[in-house]
Amino acid sequence: MSTLAYIKENKDKFLDELLALLRIPSVSADSKFKDKVREAAEFLKDRFEDLDTEVEICETGGHPIVYAERIIDPALPTVLIYGHYDVQPADPYELWDSPPFEPMVKDEKIFARGSADDKGQTYMHVKAYEALIKTDSLPCNVKFMIEGEEEIGSGSLAVFVAQNKEKLAADVILISDTHIISNDTPSITVGLRGLSYVEVEVTGPNRDLHSGTFGGAVGNPINTLCRMIASLQNERGEITIPRFYDKVEMLSQEYRDKMNLTPFDLNTFKNDLEINSEKGEEGYTTIERTGIRPTLDVNGIWGGYTGEGAKTVLPSKAYAKISMRLVPNQSSEEITQLFAKHFQKIAPDYVKVKVTPYHGGEATVTSTNAIGYKAAAKAMEKTWGKEPIPTREGGSIPIVALFQKELGTDSILMGFGLQEDAIHSPNESYGLFNYYRGIETISYFYQIFTKMKKDNQ
Amino acid sequence: MSTLAYIKENKDKFLDELLALLRIPSVSADSKFKDKVREAAEFLKDRFEDLDTEVEICETGGHPIVYAERIIDPALPTVLIYGHYDVQPADPYELWDSPPFEPMVKDEKIFARGSADDKGQTYMHVKAYEALIKTDSLPCNVKFMIEGEEEIGSGSLAVFVAQNKEKLAADVILISDTHIISNDTPSITVGLRGLSYVEVEVTGPNRDLHSGTFGGAVGNPINTLCRMIASLQNERGEITIPRFYDKVEMLSQEYRDKMNLTPFDLNTFKNDLEINSEKGEEGYTTIERTGIRPTLDVNGIWGGYTGEGAKTVLPSKAYAKISMRLVPNQSSEEITQLFAKHFQKIAPDYVKVKVTPYHGGEATVTSTNAIGYKAAAKAMEKTWGKEPIPTREGGSIPIVALFQKELGTDSILMGFGLQEDAIHSPNESYGLFNYYRGIETISYFYQIFTKMKKDNQ
Repeated sequence: MSTLAYIKENKDKFLDELLALLRIPSVSADSKFKDKVREAAEFLKDRFEDLDTEVEICETGGHPIVYAERIIDPALPTVLIYGHYDVQPADPYELWDSPPFEPMVKDEKIFARGSADDKGQTYMHVKAYEALIKTDSLPCNVKFMIEGEEEIGSGSLAVFVAQNKEKLAADVILISDTHIISNDTPSITVGLRGLSYVEVEVTGPNRDLHSGTFGGAVGNPINTLCRMIASLQNERGEITIPRFYDKVEMLSQEYRDKMNLTPFDLNTFKNDLEINSEKGEEGYTTIERTGIRPTLDVNGIWGGYTGEGAKTVLPSKAYAKISMRLVPNQSSEEITQLFAKHFQKIAPDYVKVKVTPYHGGEATVTSTNAIGYKAAAKAMEKTWGKEPIPTREGGSIPIVALFQKELGTDSILMGFGLQEDAIHSPNESYGLFNYYRGIETISYFYQIFTKMKKDNQ
Repeated sequence: MSTLAYIKENKDKFLDELLALLRIPSVSADSKFKDKVREAAEFLKDRFEDLDTEVEICETGGHPIVYAERIIDPALPTVLIYGHYDVQPADPYELWDSPPFEPMVKDEKIFARGSADDKGQTYMHVKAYEALIKTDSLPCNVKFMIEGEEEIGSGSLAVFVAQNKEKLAADVILISDTHIISNDTPSITVGLRGLSYVEVEVTGPNRDLHSGTFGGAVGNPINTLCRMIASLQNERGEITIPRFYDKVEMLSQEYRDKMNLTPFDLNTFKNDLEINSEKGEEGYTTIERTGIRPTLDVNGIWGGYTGEGAKTVLPSKAYAKISMRLVPNQSSEEITQLFAKHFQKIAPDYVKVKVTPYHGGEATVTSTNAIGYKAAAKAMEKTWGKEPIPTREGGSIPIVALFQKELGTDSILMGFGLQEDAIHSPNESYGLFNYYRGIETISYFYQIFTKMKKDNQ
């Protein structure tokens, strides 16, 4: 039986198993779901054991990592699959049309928390693997590393990877946690932005004051914070932190023109978000603004009285969480320091400012000449009948830089999700089309990659 | 026995009664204290009945109003005393050195929630009244109107006053809810600022977005709100809303020079607040900035993720509570409308803005030529040995404008508190010196006022 035939014959089984995995509320951020997180790891372990595959639950300081492997021949190439079995919290539950942990298949989509991010996408790899070994078609070595803390920062993974470099040695890492442009238009994410994240605290007087008695005479930390934040960008939408753009890679007009050929409809984009106009750095298109330009966003702000009604307080403190998305070759640590230095400098003398850095991540770009990329592109071309478009995404996936740093291995972000999946939101979904197309495409990847590696020697 | 002798002889009784009143947690803002609020009203009723004074508990839509009167002779002047028996919430309790409703007398001060604001100050009037009637020295008619909702906006009072104009008719209203400059330097508040208060909501995209995927391409409502707020004031500290200053009364240099003679030490002010420098409208002193200039403060701001850790959200909405203190002759309603119009106008087209006005209040100024003022000043001169300084305060007391509007009667703000009383804060206190000095001063007021009214006819 061909691999394709096996996949077709087992569609229902593949779906049933995914639904069973989705029923387990493996919410890593919430300690009351701790046992359920482990249950999801155990589920995966059982599925690998069903396939006579060596698998272990690796204990960590937090949630366990599921590690499985099939080594056919050390001389053959090795593909490492990364995925995560933990999911985002589902609150607020009342905004879901069907319960987040009672998966519902409707309109050709699987609605459940984690269906796209990341259980559906991770499980495609397990089923593609199954189809290959059941049809005796696996051409190379495979390793699976599926963690349970991606939604909370992958802390244990960083330790695991550093301590298991030999075990995790591979020629390429495959990750499915991104999306394609549309079901008609395949794409592979070749670029991710980096991240610099800080929390700032502005202190005025040493206590909350009555805004009648003191208003107009004492610097208000909220008004001050607003002015400081406003000053971080000019009227062209450029960030004003000195030296911020120093290391930003300048791309050729040819490169930019090619990027801008990616199918994208600005009106659809605006209508979907119900905004009258887009807003960003002058001189760049929307695709460029999210793909190849660094940005600054205030993710949260608070201070003073925020309850019901009116309270006339001139507060002691105001706070904000501010993040910057970075592009090659900006350094997350350097940018964080530039921000902190600048923010202190622009603070007027009637306030005191504290800047607390959070964990960041570097921008990454995969060359379209890399063998892993070419193999993934060919696999997609096989199932879609057209070449995928290489895209540079706005988000950050810090583990890609971690793998590069600790294992010296590139990751190929061959994801099959869609923007409409609404990951992190209520009513998350993953398309049946995407699930099955992914399994098929991934199954082709192994053969194509193995052949390319061989031809390259 | 002279009135003064009576006061001296009953100091302990006067203090014990105040402590008993302070033990009742009459927190108007919190419905779980509803019975206690009423208990405080009943306490006052009992004290008036002890003095054979006609008193009634007037039911309202909210907390009751205690009304008491002694009409000696309709031909004589009538003084109306306003006070409030409700108190601010005492949270956070852990910041108090002694429990807020277990009054402690220490360092010559009474520590308790409400000791200064306003039970101590209100009760001085009841005891001054007692001293006068017990020594057969009351020279005029007296009416007491003591409400239970001042800390939550005096809603029921507004209704009560409008419905009882005849009952509340008086030649002057005395209010003790403000402070003197220091125990050495008596002062009378002759000016209060007005208030305009709004809540604004800025909406960007129709839902929270991932700041990686969308950051740099979609207008962030927090960044936008910060820019809009920052634009409301220029680098000279002036408010940029068009026509904002149109009706502001221009005061002569002579008037300003006199104001600036008020004892005030900027270094002490700054050290107390632990600020390196003051901040306000250029060209004005601190006294002027709070007394005779209008201002704009953000009282609260919130939006996006404000919990622990990092979350990379580009939020849908950002909010702020903004208030403006006003001076004569600005109109609260007009300023609110100017703000709303301007805020809508400066909103860029990638956001939508909503402005919700809250209840405001007009600025008020009492002439130092008014008989009530002169009588209060003379009473203070008698007990202090020096004339009080007329001061214009930064805060607002909307009922002063209410009384002017509904009863056509001026209020004299003869308060005896101190800045250090820390009203609305933990460890509120009221000085024994201030309590007794106030009782004595108030007892003189009636005779002086009655004589001045007679001489004026």
